[in-house]
Amino acid sequence: MHLTVDEIARMTGGIVQGDGARAIEGASGLQEATEKDISFLGNKKYLSFLEKSRAGAVLVSPDCDVKNRTAIVLKNPQYGWAKVLEILSKERLQHPADIHPASVVSKTAKIGKNVSLGAYAVVEDGACVGDNTIVYPHVFIGANTQIGSDCLIYPHVTIRERVVIGDRCVFQPGAVIGADGFGFTLYQGKHYKVPQVGGVEIGDDVEIQANTTIDRAAAGMTRIGKGTKIDNLVQIAHNVETGENCLIAAMTGVAGSVKIGNYVTLAAQVGVAGHLKIEDSAVVGAQGGVTNDVESKAVVWGTPAHPLKDELKAIASMRKLPRILEEIKSLKKTLGIGS
Amino acid sequence: MHLTVDEIARMTGGIVQGDGARAIEGASGLQEATEKDISFLGNKKYLSFLEKSRAGAVLVSPDCDVKNRTAIVLKNPQYGWAKVLEILSKERLQHPADIHPASVVSKTAKIGKNVSLGAYAVVEDGACVGDNTIVYPHVFIGANTQIGSDCLIYPHVTIRERVVIGDRCVFQPGAVIGADGFGFTLYQGKHYKVPQVGGVEIGDDVEIQANTTIDRAAAGMTRIGKGTKIDNLVQIAHNVETGENCLIAAMTGVAGSVKIGNYVTLAAQVGVAGHLKIEDSAVVGAQGGVTNDVESKAVVWGTPAHPLKDELKAIASMRKLPRILEEIKSLKKTLGIGS
Amino acid sequence: MHLTVDEIARMTGGIVQGDGARAIEGASGLQEATEKDISFLGNKKYLSFLEKSRAGAVLVSPDCDVKNRTAIVLKNPQYGWAKVLEILSKERLQHPADIHPASVVSKTAKIGKNVSLGAYAVVEDGACVGDNTIVYPHVFIGANTQIGSDCLIYPHVTIRERVVIGDRCVFQPGAVIGADGFGFTLYQGKHYKVPQVGGVEIGDDVEIQANTTIDRAAAGMTRIGKGTKIDNLVQIAHNVETGENCLIAAMTGVAGSVKIGNYVTLAAQVGVAGHLKIEDSAVVGAQGGVTNDVESKAVVWGTPAHPLKDELKAIASMRKLPRILEEIKSLKKTLGIGS
Repeated sequence: MHLTVDEIARMTGGIVQGDGARAIEGASGLQEATEKDISFLGNKKYLSFLEKSRAGAVLVSPDCDVKNRTAIVLKNPQYGWAKVLEILSKERLQHPADIHPASVVSKTAKIGKNVSLGAYAVVEDGACVGDNTIVYPHVFIGANTQIGSDCLIYPHVTIRERVVIGDRCVFQPGAVIGADGFGFTLYQGKHYKVPQVGGVEIGDDVEIQANTTIDRAAAGMTRIGKGTKIDNLVQIAHNVETGENCLIAAMTGVAGSVKIGNYVTLAAQVGVAGHLKIEDSAVVGAQGGVTNDVESKAVVWGTPAHPLKDELKAIASMRKLPRILEEIKSLKKTLGIGS
Repeated sequence: MHLTVDEIARMTGGIVQGDGARAIEGASGLQEATEKDISFLGNKKYLSFLEKSRAGAVLVSPDCDVKNRTAIVLKNPQYGWAKVLEILSKERLQHPADIHPASVVSKTAKIGKNVSLGAYAVVEDGACVGDNTIVYPHVFIGANTQIGSDCLIYPHVTIRERVVIGDRCVFQPGAVIGADGFGFTLYQGKHYKVPQVGGVEIGDDVEIQANTTIDRAAAGMTRIGKGTKIDNLVQIAHNVETGENCLIAAMTGVAGSVKIGNYVTLAAQVGVAGHLKIEDSAVVGAQGGVTNDVESKAVVWGTPAHPLKDELKAIASMRKLPRILEEIKSLKKTLGIGS
Repeated sequence: MHLTVDEIARMTGGIVQGDGARAIEGASGLQEATEKDISFLGNKKYLSFLEKSRAGAVLVSPDCDVKNRTAIVLKNPQYGWAKVLEILSKERLQHPADIHPASVVSKTAKIGKNVSLGAYAVVEDGACVGDNTIVYPHVFIGANTQIGSDCLIYPHVTIRERVVIGDRCVFQPGAVIGADGFGFTLYQGKHYKVPQVGGVEIGDDVEIQANTTIDRAAAGMTRIGKGTKIDNLVQIAHNVETGENCLIAAMTGVAGSVKIGNYVTLAAQVGVAGHLKIEDSAVVGAQGGVTNDVESKAVVWGTPAHPLKDELKAIASMRKLPRILEEIKSLKKTLGIGS
C-alpha cells in the first residue's frame, strides 16, 4: 500500500510544500526513515536530525522553516503523524476474528461478533465481551465483568469480577483491574480484612498501560472517566474517581477515595494522599506529594505540594542556605554579638 | 438470605438503636445503599452522605449522634462492617472444589483436600497446596514450593521454586514471590550475576497485593512475618525480614537486608535504604526516604527521614526562606554593610 | 556432588587458609550454613555472624582477619561466591529440553535446538527462540520477536511483537517488554493515541527483573545496552537508550527519549525527566529527581538533583533553619529594628 503526500495532507488537514505526488509507503523516526517514509518533527530540539534525515516527507508545524524538503505543514504535526500511523498500521495489526480452541469460555459468558480471543484466555461465568474486541493470550476476565466493543486487551491482563468497561479501551500487558483495595481494620491486635465488595467502572476510550493496578472499591465504585489515559506502573486505590480526559503518568499513586476532575495531569511518580480533591485542569509536577486539595488550573510541585512558583523560589533559596548561614555569622561578628 | 439488625448487632457486639427487627439483605456504601442494605460511617467527613443515605441501617461509633435512624453502635464500626461483609460475601464467593482439566499438575506435587485449581494453573514438581486453598487461573507454583491451607491466590500470580507460605494468605493478581534479588558483582568490567539461592518464607494471614514483588534471598531467607499486609506495587528486596502485623502501603520499596519489627507502618511510596533496622511500631510517612535506623514508635518523614515534628518545622521554615533572604539584605543595608 | 576447598580456590583464583582437603557439598548464608557448606563474608558488618557460623569454609577478602577457620582469601569474595553458586546450582536447575504439549507455537515460528518451552507458553507468527533458551510456563512471545540463545525467561513475562533480544538475557516474572509508550496528542479536546510503531532492542547479557516495564519506541527503537541490569518495578519509557553495563535499581522511572551512557548507576526510586542525557559512570542517588543533563562521573542527589556535596550541605542547613529564624529575630531586637 502507498499514499501520496497530497493524500496524506488531505487526511490530516495540512498544506503541502514541495512534491505532493511523491509516494509514501511507511512512517518512521527521522533517523531511521528512508526516501519512502514520512516522518515528523515533534520537538525543535531535533532540528539537526531533520537536516540529516533521508525521509521522503516530513510533518512540521507552521513555525518550522523547512526549506528544500517535501513537507506537510499543519498546526498539530503530532496529530497528523498519529493519523498516518493509524492508517499504515491498520494493515499490520491483523487479528482474525477467532476463538482459539485452547481458551476457556464459560457457557454463561457472552462473546460478541467478530471477537478475537487468544490462546489460554479465560472468560468466567456471566462475563460479556463486546463486538470486535481483541483479547490476547493469557487474559483473565472474571465473573460478570462487562467489556465493551472495539477494546484491545494485551497478554496477562487480569480483569477481576464485576468490573464494567466501556468501548474502545486499551489495556497494556500485565494491568490488573479490580484487585482488592488495601482495607484492613485493627481488631484485637490483628489487621482484620474488610472485604472489598465494590467494583470498578471504566469509561469509553480509556487506556490503562502496563502493570498498572486499579483497585475495586471497598463498597460502591472506583471510577475512571472516559478518555483518561494512565501510564505504566500506576496505582489507583479503592474508591478513587477520576474525571474525563486526564493524563496520569508512570508510577503515580493515588490513595483511597481521592476525587480528580477533568483534564487533570499528574506527572510521573506523583503521590496523592487519601480523600483529597484535585479540580479540573490542575497539574501536579513529577515526584510531587499532594497533601491538600488542589484548585482548578493550579500547577503544584514538591512534597508537600505547593504552587510551582513558590516551590521554585523555596528551592532556589534553599541552595543559598549554606551561604546565608555564613552571612549571619559574620553579621553577628561585626555587631560583636557572641553565639 | 437476610439478617435482622438485631442479628447483625449480636454478631458484631454492637448496640441497636431503632428498629432491630428490620431485615437486611445486603451491604453497600452510604451513597449506593437501599432500604434493604446496611452501611457504615467510617469517617465523620462523610456525615452529610449519611444524612442523605437511604440505607436501612448503619454501623456507627459511639461518638456519632445519629438520630431518627436505625443504627448499630459499636466501638469499631469498621470491624462490624468487615464482619457483615464477610457473612454476606461468603455466598457470593463460591468456588467448587475442582481441579480444572486444563491445568498442569506434576505427578510429584501434592494437592490437599477441597482445593480449587483454575484453568491453566501450573503446579511444578514437589510443590504442595494445602486444604481448601483456591488457586485462580494462570497461577504458577514453582518446584518444591509449599502453600498452606485456606489461601486465596488470584490470577497471574507467580510463586517461584522453594517458597514457603503459611495458612490463610491472600495473593492479589500479578504478585511475584521469589524472583531473583538484584545481586551482581563487578568482575573484569562486567556485572557478574550472584546466583540467588535463598528462599522466601511468608507467615500465616499475610496478604500480598497486586503486582507486588518479593524477592528471594541471595542466601538464607526473605521473611514476611505473620499478619503483615502489603499493598500494590511494593518492592521487597532480597533478605529483607519484616515482623508481624506490619502495614506496607503502595509503591514502597525496601532495599536488601533491612530488618523491620512488628506493627511497623510504611506509608505509600516510602524508600528504605539497605541493611537498616526499623523497630517495632515505628511509622514512616508517605514518600519518606529512610537512610538511618528508626527507633521503636518513632514517626519519621522526609528524605532523608527525620522525626515528623522536626521535618514539619524545617518545611515551614523553608517556605519562609525567600522572605528571610530579603530581611538579611535589609539588615545589612541598615547596618551599612556592603554585600 | 562435592568439591574440596582446594578445588574451589583454584576455580575462583583464591588462596586457601586452613584445611584445603575439606569436602564442600553446598553453599549457604553464614547463619544457615552447616559444616558441609561454604559461605562468604560480603560486608564486615556481619563479622559477628561469621564468628558464630558453622560453615565448613568461608570466602573472605584479604583485609579480613579470619583465624582458626578454613577460608579462601580473594580480592572479590562475592565473585568467588557467585562462581561457586553457579557450579553448585547448575545441577539444581535442570530443564529438560522439551516443548510442553500444552503450549502454542506458530507454524512460522522458529525454535532453536535444546529449547525448553513450558506449559501454556505462546510463541506467535514469525518469532524466533535461540538455542538452549529456557522459557517457563505462561510466557508470551509476540509476532516476529527474536530471542537470542541461552536466555532464561520466567513465568508471565510478556514480550510483544518485533522485539529483538540478545544472548544470555534473563527476564524475571511479570516483566513486560514492548508495551506501547505513553504517547497521545490533544486534538479537539481529546487525547488522540499516537500509534507506537517502534520496537525494543535489548543487548546480550541483560537482566530485566520482576514486573519491570520497557516500552517500545514511538518510532525507531528503545535500546538497552549489553550487560545492563534492571531491578524490579522499573519503568523505561519509549525511545530511551541506555548504554552498556548500567545498574538501574528498583522503582526507578526513566521518561521518554532519555539517553544514558555506559556504567551509569540509577539508585532506587529515581526519576529522570524526558529528553535528558546522563553521561558515562554518573550516579544518581535514591529518590533523586533528575531535571538536567548529568555529566560523566557526576554523583547527584535530591529533587531537583544537584551534586551530592551541595545537596548534603543544603539539607544540613535546612535542618538548622528554625534556629536561624530565631537568630534573625533576636538580631533585629538587639538592633532595635521592628518587624
